[in-house]
Amino acid sequence: MTLQQARGTVYGVVLNDAISRERIGSLDDAPYKGAPKAPVLYIKPANTRATAGAAIALPEGASSVEVGATIGLVIAQPAARVAPESALSHVGALVLAADLSLPHASYYRPAIREKCFDQSLVLGAPQPLCDMAALALETSIDGQSVERFALSELLRGPAQLLSEVSSWMTLCPGDVLLVGVRYQAPQARAGQHIRIDAGALGALQFEIKQGGQA
Amino acid sequence: MTLQQARGTVYGVVLNDAISRERIGSLDDAPYKGAPKAPVLYIKPANTRATAGAAIALPEGASSVEVGATIGLVIAQPAARVAPESALSHVGALVLAADLSLPHASYYRPAIREKCFDQSLVLGAPQPLCDMAALALETSIDGQSVERFALSELLRGPAQLLSEVSSWMTLCPGDVLLVGVRYQAPQARAGQHIRIDAGALGALQFEIKQGGQA
Repeated sequence: MTLQQARGTVYGVVLNDAISRERIGSLDDAPYKGAPKAPVLYIKPANTRATAGAAIALPEGASSVEVGATIGLVIAQPAARVAPESALSHVGALVLAADLSLPHASYYRPAIREKCFDQSLVLGAPQPLCDMAALALETSIDGQSVERFALSELLRGPAQLLSEVSSWMTLCPGDVLLVGVRYQAPQARAGQHIRIDAGALGALQFEIKQGGQA
Repeated sequence: MTLQQARGTVYGVVLNDAISRERIGSLDDAPYKGAPKAPVLYIKPANTRATAGAAIALPEGASSVEVGATIGLVIAQPAARVAPESALSHVGALVLAADLSLPHASYYRPAIREKCFDQSLVLGAPQPLCDMAALALETSIDGQSVERFALSELLRGPAQLLSEVSSWMTLCPGDVLLVGVRYQAPQARAGQHIRIDAGALGALQFEIKQGGQA
């Protein structure tokens, strides 16, 4: 069974780097009344999984998708209430991922439609663990570099993030925890080709195509 | 494999009945600026699944949980872009469910922690399909009736809801779509016993217990 066929749940987190926090601006006013104290999570269920090289159909009514380059921690051992020091021992592999979203300005409503449409998570092949803080994700659209995301920028590093999430939710083998995506990630339209380069973790490529009636 | 061991995703919807809409009050002001036009969905991943008779541990720091009685549609055939008229032919069974949440006042941030803690979805045994509009869910805490939810009150009925969700997300066999829970459902504390009676669908019972370090 490949990672794309697995039925585990994929969890992601927003606003986990300083540039994203800067882009969203002040969170001091209503309704947020302050920066988030805990990881701001979302879920990418099984229907979102797509493979490298896929041609991703835009959902009906959409003209573009945001492309959030990130790294996923593939859980190999059940993780519940784990300390940051031992958190990564529950991780069996890393995976380069493109987390696609419909552009949306706020998190006022749970963004399930925006984040969970079919094929909205492109996953590369699992790779051995490496020093994630040394990785940088370079996103290019049609050959033009449009975003660079160094994992050293993460506000909560992978081990800390996994520890905090596991404090109230058990992660199971096959689940994947994405370590963070940029707020307002670059947008791609139908016909465009996306490539994410991740140094030691290789590269991930896919295309966006026009959606249609099934 | 029982339904509780299945790895499919469970989807739920809030604000799908008139009493819930009334309880949340006006949504005309910022940040909502109007009633939701599409189903307001949330996800209950595999770690939330619990069985009838379970003693559900409160998450650390919580003193009570909201008990949302509802019915789940258990998907038997892949459902993508299905019409309301044929939507229920993709459903293999119904399941009586108690959807537990930490009390939270707003949906301003994605309520993953509040909705996805371990054991926060108690599922009964799958039952044959029946006329859902004739069902009413009666929730009792320690023998006292605290909420009644007639499925005839649903703003989007099960077939309509499944059709709308499947218009952008493929539901797979083993997935479950919960048809709606009350906003501000009754709260239960550690030591209390909950029973949900659903007429033709039988009853579901469980307990709440104090959480602790794992």
